[in-house]
Amino acid sequence: MDGIEQPGQVNKEALKKLKAGKRPPHNVQELVDGILAGNRTLLSKAITLVESSLPEHMELGQEVIAGCLRETRAQLQNANGKLQTANGKLPTADYRLPTAKSGENSIRVGITGVPGVGKSTFIEALGKYITSQGYRLAVLAIDPSSARSKGSILGDKTRMEELAVDPNAFIRPSPAAGSLGGVARKTRETIILCEAAGFDVIFVETVGVGQSETAVHSMVDFFLLLMLAGAGDELQGIKRGIIEMADVIMINKADGDNIGKAQAACMEYANALQLFPPADSGWLPVADICSARSKLGIDCIWELILEHRKTTLSNGYFYHQRMEQNRQVFRDAIDAGLHHHFFAQKGISEVIAGMEEEIREGRMNPYRAAQEVLGRYLGGLVD
Amino acid sequence: MDGIEQPGQVNKEALKKLKAGKRPPHNVQELVDGILAGNRTLLSKAITLVESSLPEHMELGQEVIAGCLRETRAQLQNANGKLQTANGKLPTADYRLPTAKSGENSIRVGITGVPGVGKSTFIEALGKYITSQGYRLAVLAIDPSSARSKGSILGDKTRMEELAVDPNAFIRPSPAAGSLGGVARKTRETIILCEAAGFDVIFVETVGVGQSETAVHSMVDFFLLLMLAGAGDELQGIKRGIIEMADVIMINKADGDNIGKAQAACMEYANALQLFPPADSGWLPVADICSARSKLGIDCIWELILEHRKTTLSNGYFYHQRMEQNRQVFRDAIDAGLHHHFFAQKGISEVIAGMEEEIREGRMNPYRAAQEVLGRYLGGLVD
Repeated sequence: MDGIEQPGQVNKEALKKLKAGKRPPHNVQELVDGILAGNRTLLSKAITLVESSLPEHMELGQEVIAGCLRETRAQLQNANGKLQTANGKLPTADYRLPTAKSGENSIRVGITGVPGVGKSTFIEALGKYITSQGYRLAVLAIDPSSARSKGSILGDKTRMEELAVDPNAFIRPSPAAGSLGGVARKTRETIILCEAAGFDVIFVETVGVGQSETAVHSMVDFFLLLMLAGAGDELQGIKRGIIEMADVIMINKADGDNIGKAQAACMEYANALQLFPPADSGWLPVADICSARSKLGIDCIWELILEHRKTTLSNGYFYHQRMEQNRQVFRDAIDAGLHHHFFAQKGISEVIAGMEEEIREGRMNPYRAAQEVLGRYLGGLVD
Repeated sequence: MDGIEQPGQVNKEALKKLKAGKRPPHNVQELVDGILAGNRTLLSKAITLVESSLPEHMELGQEVIAGCLRETRAQLQNANGKLQTANGKLPTADYRLPTAKSGENSIRVGITGVPGVGKSTFIEALGKYITSQGYRLAVLAIDPSSARSKGSILGDKTRMEELAVDPNAFIRPSPAAGSLGGVARKTRETIILCEAAGFDVIFVETVGVGQSETAVHSMVDFFLLLMLAGAGDELQGIKRGIIEMADVIMINKADGDNIGKAQAACMEYANALQLFPPADSGWLPVADICSARSKLGIDCIWELILEHRKTTLSNGYFYHQRMEQNRQVFRDAIDAGLHHHFFAQKGISEVIAGMEEEIREGRMNPYRAAQEVLGRYLGGLVD
């Protein structure tokens, strides 16, 4: 197994193994065709393959990704003649989405905010508004599962009851039990699959105020930060990094007695935003208030997202950023491939297990152990 | 440059390059000896080498790490005869730290909590208490720098004014501009250096409630979660993963009018902790209240940390966990080495740049591009 499958070429061996297993067999073309036809069951199955850590599933998943990219690209080329670049001529298309099955016509929106800010209610309100406008919406939640129980916490569609039964919405929580890098990779690939299935708007939801936001920022077109007035949420140094990434900051729960406080907080953030250097996108970040409960400002948010798209499409930043993001995908895929190839070596598990025993017994330090196994592996390359 | 230096062997080429550069020259032995003698200037320089992304600095940093591990290990073996394992006989040493320059005798404490919880004041209060007890304390802060400005936010010792001038304390904020994996690796290595320099207690501070806590949990012996009463901080599903990792949950700011609320929150968390399955450590997590401002409960926290150490030393979990953590260091070091070797290939920058141009122009999808460059590189191994 060399991990270097040619794209589009069906791995018959992996398929055979898969057929022998418990999961129902699907070949790559069946999955690609199903996804392009908007079949949700096959979309879900493909996402599961992409998220799997079984080598056979991962390989199949990669082939499905490649197939979807090839097909959507072909559609786009038929439509536009050729792919547009930041430096080339840009499409003057209406900024309303053409609801085409092509990633280039989607909007990818990152939504983040601390626990308790009301993200689920917000996503349900904004999501329902978007589907009411005739768009199809996929909601991907990066779920920081408990490392100890390996369980999925957010894997619960009941968080968004209305959206969960909306035929134009698709909700997919992704367990993030592994590394953050892994999450980012799989979420990016899930975005591609959802776009191929015809979803126009992709929400990527994260929780917390940590590094996962940086990862999400690297895969979306638009980054929305939800905040609360008061509640220890004053402007603090630590949030600066997140605030800098935001295209829009929304002070949520601006309802009832809370409206005044929300407006005050909004002013504070609006002032803070002016202190930052202008963004490369040419977009001036906006702070505003909203209430997911009373639906205040929900339509405005969608208008802001479309306005941002219009701005960045016309100045070329939209494509520029997507291409830069692809560059990062490329870098990440190299690291993933190196890892995969190393651990797919014949006999490597025994070598690793032996080293780990040495480390566990305290006879070897882990840095030295890594140098030794790498030395043996890389010897083949150096010679 | 093959990236596979033999440990302890001085890389003369790297040293020469370093000497030609701007930084003052230090050889590995000088740094190792200085660190073991508790020289803070050389300790800081070594940490800077470890944190550097320049290959020459990284290599020197690795040699210093290896040197420190070798020396502290030799000291430990002289003291104890041989390293103890989870399965072997365990030292019945007094749980009070022997203030020895050996990582095995240190306590590594992770401290986390959302922004606004009062971490700096808390660390200052607990830190001063610990140094007043005759221990030496190093505080490492993982600083989630702004990805956009590349600046360091927490790089400010004035957050902890008293601790900053305490001769028995050492404060080191680490910029986390790169990947989370990189942060974790460098923080682990910084811990080793600080322990070699004779620090008995190592605090690793993180902010936010995200994946960085999982990374920190994987490098400490004891995990302390700071919380606030009220303030939207009710028990929420999302915090479960973090709560599960906590050995102690402290409700901070239990002073003035807030004491009653803090006690109520404490009860709530204490009840919640009982719902979790027993931890492998044999330690029953504790919830309590404290006030960094009025110093309420600060001494109790240190007693809890020592009690936890006593429990886990006597049931073997302390060493077991450290060895498991070393196993993870080993895995991470393999990935870092694979990455380093790939990008150190002759001519690779041109190949990568060419591919990135193709990707930017939209002529190549990033997954396919990664497969192609990997195929060429790994060809040498497969043949």
